[in-house]
Amino acid sequence: MAKFTKLVRFLASDGKVYYGDAIGSGDARFAKYANIIEGDIFGSHTVTDKVIGIRKLLCPLAPTDISSIRCIGLNYSKHAVETNMPKPKSPILFYKPRGAAAGPTDPIVVPSMQQPPNCTVAAVDYECELVVVIGKECKDVTQSEALDYVLGYSVANDVSQRDWQIKLGGGQWSVGKMCDGWAPFGPAIVPTSVIPDPQTLTIYTKVNGKLMQKENTSDMIFNVAQAISFFSQGTTLYPGDIILTGTPSGVASGFKNPPWLKHGDVVEIGLEKVGTILNKVEYEPFAKFKL
Amino acid sequence: MAKFTKLVRFLASDGKVYYGDAIGSGDARFAKYANIIEGDIFGSHTVTDKVIGIRKLLCPLAPTDISSIRCIGLNYSKHAVETNMPKPKSPILFYKPRGAAAGPTDPIVVPSMQQPPNCTVAAVDYECELVVVIGKECKDVTQSEALDYVLGYSVANDVSQRDWQIKLGGGQWSVGKMCDGWAPFGPAIVPTSVIPDPQTLTIYTKVNGKLMQKENTSDMIFNVAQAISFFSQGTTLYPGDIILTGTPSGVASGFKNPPWLKHGDVVEIGLEKVGTILNKVEYEPFAKFKL
Repeated sequence: MAKFTKLVRFLASDGKVYYGDAIGSGDARFAKYANIIEGDIFGSHTVTDKVIGIRKLLCPLAPTDISSIRCIGLNYSKHAVETNMPKPKSPILFYKPRGAAAGPTDPIVVPSMQQPPNCTVAAVDYECELVVVIGKECKDVTQSEALDYVLGYSVANDVSQRDWQIKLGGGQWSVGKMCDGWAPFGPAIVPTSVIPDPQTLTIYTKVNGKLMQKENTSDMIFNVAQAISFFSQGTTLYPGDIILTGTPSGVASGFKNPPWLKHGDVVEIGLEKVGTILNKVEYEPFAKFKL
Repeated sequence: MAKFTKLVRFLASDGKVYYGDAIGSGDARFAKYANIIEGDIFGSHTVTDKVIGIRKLLCPLAPTDISSIRCIGLNYSKHAVETNMPKPKSPILFYKPRGAAAGPTDPIVVPSMQQPPNCTVAAVDYECELVVVIGKECKDVTQSEALDYVLGYSVANDVSQRDWQIKLGGGQWSVGKMCDGWAPFGPAIVPTSVIPDPQTLTIYTKVNGKLMQKENTSDMIFNVAQAISFFSQGTTLYPGDIILTGTPSGVASGFKNPPWLKHGDVVEIGLEKVGTILNKVEYEPFAKFKL
């Protein structure tokens, strides 16, 4: 069982990388110190009394601790409406590759292939999402026991390029979602002891300070327990698997003139009781890609 | 650079698990002995002169050595025709979770959720596919250098349940592809030194001895080099990432009365110069699943 209250992974003042428990009651993004955690964050571990300075927060899970990154499509009632899609009858599943995972203040880099004329429009969009981190291996989980397998919660931006996702990808969303760093999350992983009910939390996105998405996780069509149960049918979920549980209404693509993310835009995403992530958009110098 | 000619992972006669180089010129599925490999199969390693008996072949990569499992949809000309889908303009990308990876003789287990009335039809299908195993970390790879990052090739069955894949999954193929063991592959990983050109190989599927698919990998719409280049745009490929490169025509779903895989069916899939995998279909005892 998790002994931390705000699990962070960070580059410390001594130049080394640690897992730690962020100190302070506020947003872990601004934490200056942490108690170093020793042992296995998914198993036996100790929050030590060794306090160290945080130089930079990293992705809350080490890349080698991440197995699959599952995502749910169209999982908020009002978002399903804005995309003109029917309300799903079961969770819509897609994935991001491991390299999409990034830290709470890492830049969102838009590579050449996601820019015209390598596509039609650089339709780069934000999606605030509650992240579930699986803590224990499980399979064929019932809804009533599902939350027992959760290590904790975090908040992510499921960065999406709608042109590749919707128009150019042959109907599968993956190419428009696949790039390095396109699932920044953090700032911390907050355990189920602190968040016993994940369906009561306000989630939001601000772009350059302007509020674009704001909703309560109670608007989810399939709640966290249902998603875990569904994805685990005949399928093992591993410690370090993460699930991005879908985004509410307010994404750029829902506007008549979509305010796509441009070079230099700053995207802040927050989740109640979890904290905020803040990522700056950087368009890579363009290079023609030829298939 | 790979020093082996047929990389296998196996339970040995001493009860331990090893990476090894299968001995003999034939199909590695029938190899009785291997030279034990010491070191990192992706880096510095030695094929030792220690010979040991193979008790059972395992998935050619250890689960912890696998990062993302990418798959290409509709990547053979004639298969695109049989599915009534337009010929793609770029590789269609989807994923399987890590737990889908399995060994060359492991059973294909069909869990309850993939059986009616948890869905409409148990539309379980076979797909023979050439597997690319990435050997070196890479990003923004050109087509001309792409094969330099390949460790070797293998052959897989991209087991698919068409009802969840096409009709019930909300348009994304993932739920119909996600189950444990639904990407058995092997029997070995054959390096690029043995297969310098992956587009010249006969690939086939037999179900209960009857030939269902047979094609040359030259029929691929996007070849291995193009796929690696495309998927690496803005996206890091890691050692142990695998790419299933699509299936030729002849799948069950292409028939007017589809011969879906039934309990007890035996699926043999072969790839020239690589060998064969043979997996028996096992329907799990049914249990009602309620979302």
